[in-house]
Amino acid sequence: MRIDIITVVPELIQSPFAASILRRAIDNGLVEVHFHNIRDYSTNKHKQVDDYQFGGGAGMVLMIEPIDKCISGLKAERDYDEIIYMTPDGETLNQGIANALSLKKNIIILCGHYKGVDQRVRDHFITREISIGDYVLSGGELGAAVLADAVIRLIPGVLNNETSALTDSFQDGLLAPPIYTRPAEYKGWKVPDLLTSGNFPKIEAWREEQAYEHTKKRRPDLLDDE
Amino acid sequence: MRIDIITVVPELIQSPFAASILRRAIDNGLVEVHFHNIRDYSTNKHKQVDDYQFGGGAGMVLMIEPIDKCISGLKAERDYDEIIYMTPDGETLNQGIANALSLKKNIIILCGHYKGVDQRVRDHFITREISIGDYVLSGGELGAAVLADAVIRLIPGVLNNETSALTDSFQDGLLAPPIYTRPAEYKGWKVPDLLTSGNFPKIEAWREEQAYEHTKKRRPDLLDDE
Repeated sequence: MRIDIITVVPELIQSPFAASILRRAIDNGLVEVHFHNIRDYSTNKHKQVDDYQFGGGAGMVLMIEPIDKCISGLKAERDYDEIIYMTPDGETLNQGIANALSLKKNIIILCGHYKGVDQRVRDHFITREISIGDYVLSGGELGAAVLADAVIRLIPGVLNNETSALTDSFQDGLLAPPIYTRPAEYKGWKVPDLLTSGNFPKIEAWREEQAYEHTKKRRPDLLDDE
Repeated sequence: MRIDIITVVPELIQSPFAASILRRAIDNGLVEVHFHNIRDYSTNKHKQVDDYQFGGGAGMVLMIEPIDKCISGLKAERDYDEIIYMTPDGETLNQGIANALSLKKNIIILCGHYKGVDQRVRDHFITREISIGDYVLSGGELGAAVLADAVIRLIPGVLNNETSALTDSFQDGLLAPPIYTRPAEYKGWKVPDLLTSGNFPKIEAWREEQAYEHTKKRRPDLLDDE
């Protein structure tokens, strides 16, 4: 899989890809992540990439031309399955969308910044608009990092058995049950006796029940979806 | 405001705070962000901070003792309004939660990693559990960065008039209307005539109507909430 991330502040978004699981996935050749600075595509001698809104109002808007040049250049080199714009008014990301995107070959993620991009970019170049949640961020960069992380970890081979995604929250429509590790007692707080009993069938049943009860208490809406 | 972020991979989460709006907010003394590496609080000579799950199963669990030492050390120095754990089964972040947290003085954000933290950390040290959305990430670090970004930009003085949060999506219960900037025509794609007319009352009315229609089409659930 190849992910091209287009942004006006690439330095914002480097570190999430420079360590841990994403770094290993890149090092192992399971995914390529390329960053493109919109400023490099400005045709203006001042490297201008944003301008005031037509009709007045606070906030700068990213101009269409540098974005067009960047996206069109990439599309000339290969076919893209999706050209995604990160925006709070997009479709809300969930595990199902992440699963589906993890099967794609090439995707572009465009990050807004300031007030966002010229609407004509969205109308003519974007195939999908995604939001990571109902809140506003300084720019689309963190959204792009979140989307890339959610997708990349689902690519076969990225997680090993020890970190398998199969027991994660949402993969089976339930939240994860509680987990405990050593020491068995800390400051008088003990782990449930069953977990140290060695009775694995009973432990499995307990976990399923805990996952269900936890989901019913915190997120009954997830049970309704089934 | 002061934000303490506790993580086992602090290098993952540095860059979002090193540029643009968050960097300026920190440089201007409007917010302090401190990173704490859980590994520095390990009492184990191998700097161990995680161990296998009791009861078996894939994935490592962050141990309670180093986290206790880190949180207790911070609490000994000042009072904290919230000690937040980022987890997919927490309460889902929205703009209202971000607004409320932006009024706090000191908060701790604990990032899970691997399968998460020992349940006793959640039971005894955490005051609030927050999720940034219904998807699973490699760790809580990106979630912590998202939460911090959503909150910090709402602190008075962080955004200037040009980047005011007041016209953002969600602040008035509506998605933002479309925005355009120069050139007025690009490859035959024109901005709506009204926006270049100079008729500001009409432009304002058009924007309100567009915001409402856009919300009705994409997120009718936001209108139901009112």
